Amino acid sequence: MEIKILQKVLQANDALAEQTRQYFKSKGILVINLMGSPGAGKTTFISRTIEALKGEINFAVIEGDITSTIDAERLSRLGIPVVQINTEPFDGACHLEATWIKDAALSFDLQNLDVIIIENVGNLVCPAEFDTGAHKNVVILSTPEGEDKPLKYPLMFRVSHAVVINKIDLREILDYNLEVINQNLTTVNDALERFILTSKTGEGFSHWIDWVRNQLKIIRD
Amino acid sequence: MEIKILQKVLQANDALAEQTRQYFKSKGILVINLMGSPGAGKTTFISRTIEALKGEINFAVIEGDITSTIDAERLSRLGIPVVQINTEPFDGACHLEATWIKDAALSFDLQNLDVIIIENVGNLVCPAEFDTGAHKNVVILSTPEGEDKPLKYPLMFRVSHAVVINKIDLREILDYNLEVINQNLTTVNDALERFILTSKTGEGFSHWIDWVRNQLKIIRD
Repeated sequence: MEIKILQKVLQANDALAEQTRQYFKSKGILVINLMGSPGAGKTTFISRTIEALKGEINFAVIEGDITSTIDAERLSRLGIPVVQINTEPFDGACHLEATWIKDAALSFDLQNLDVIIIENVGNLVCPAEFDTGAHKNVVILSTPEGEDKPLKYPLMFRVSHAVVINKIDLREILDYNLEVINQNLTTVNDALERFILTSKTGEGFSHWIDWVRNQLKIIRD
Repeated sequence: MEIKILQKVLQANDALAEQTRQYFKSKGILVINLMGSPGAGKTTFISRTIEALKGEINFAVIEGDITSTIDAERLSRLGIPVVQINTEPFDGACHLEATWIKDAALSFDLQNLDVIIIENVGNLVCPAEFDTGAHKNVVILSTPEGEDKPLKYPLMFRVSHAVVINKIDLREILDYNLEVINQNLTTVNDALERFILTSKTGEGFSHWIDWVRNQLKIIRD
């Protein structure tokens, strides 16, 4: 019973997500859905990305949290449009749905926009189950989380187009094994684009920034 | 519609959880439900707890993961009974339900058991919504996750009896602010017992170990 209803919800969500994806492509706006655990460093990563492309690419952010506006306030300070979605009234959902994303995205001034970044709810499970309508799914994984996460949360890594290994400056102190994480990523999804960086210092960011530029070009071709 | 069904599921779960809690109390067995994000350090924390109390307290572990048996295998090496629950056949649930816990717990040899630790699915959201039947809920939060998590995931900190701040050895390199985390914990739930430690070296563990001993005494009074 419960599962059937969930399937219906998912089907409706997927149809709307596909429409949203087409609509923003037609407007030449790239939508990136960023997912990851609580504390993986999503907000700092978004900040640095926006700062690195200031004056070149206009961003807006849709900020997803169960409650609070902490991250939305941080990002607003960059002078970009931010919409907060709190899922508390929706049963405290640990994901964002396509319908909420569509409404939030349409509230922006689309004339002056190049890229919308969705900061999904901090979670390695639920957000992977709901298509948001983004063109690209990116999962951010920080070194303190360990190398085994792709094997334990495979769906997240299967639905993602790119993975960011963040906080690489902690690699030595944590004995983080890049060979092992790379092997585990390949096991789960060998088509994943991979970025190894740290948002704290910006080390390794240029490869990621090039990817964003390139995805925007692709959407506009 | 969906919400009503969820409420029914939750009510049935809570009733069974209460029975389970009473049953294990009558057997003099303490059940601790450990929750936290992916990568917070749950498995290493459990390992060190079991090693610290070896020969004094007999443990068993119920290991919850969506998929894989990585953590169960790690813990089995300590020579303790471990049962793995994979939620993949249950729609990839990001929580553990009372009925699964009851079945898993009853599979142990209860005559020679003092404490059952449940390692819940790595998640700061879903596990907080389902009573497992444990006597004590403990949330583990690692310093790389930042100081704002109690404000962003308040339910988790409200349903918990104790919080473990883990990976405190990274405090300096991360500029982790203990005053801020303490203030945020107080805002959300000022009754939380607090333990500040690192599983890597064992620093700060004695206070936690005393708490486990004491909780076992209380359950047997």
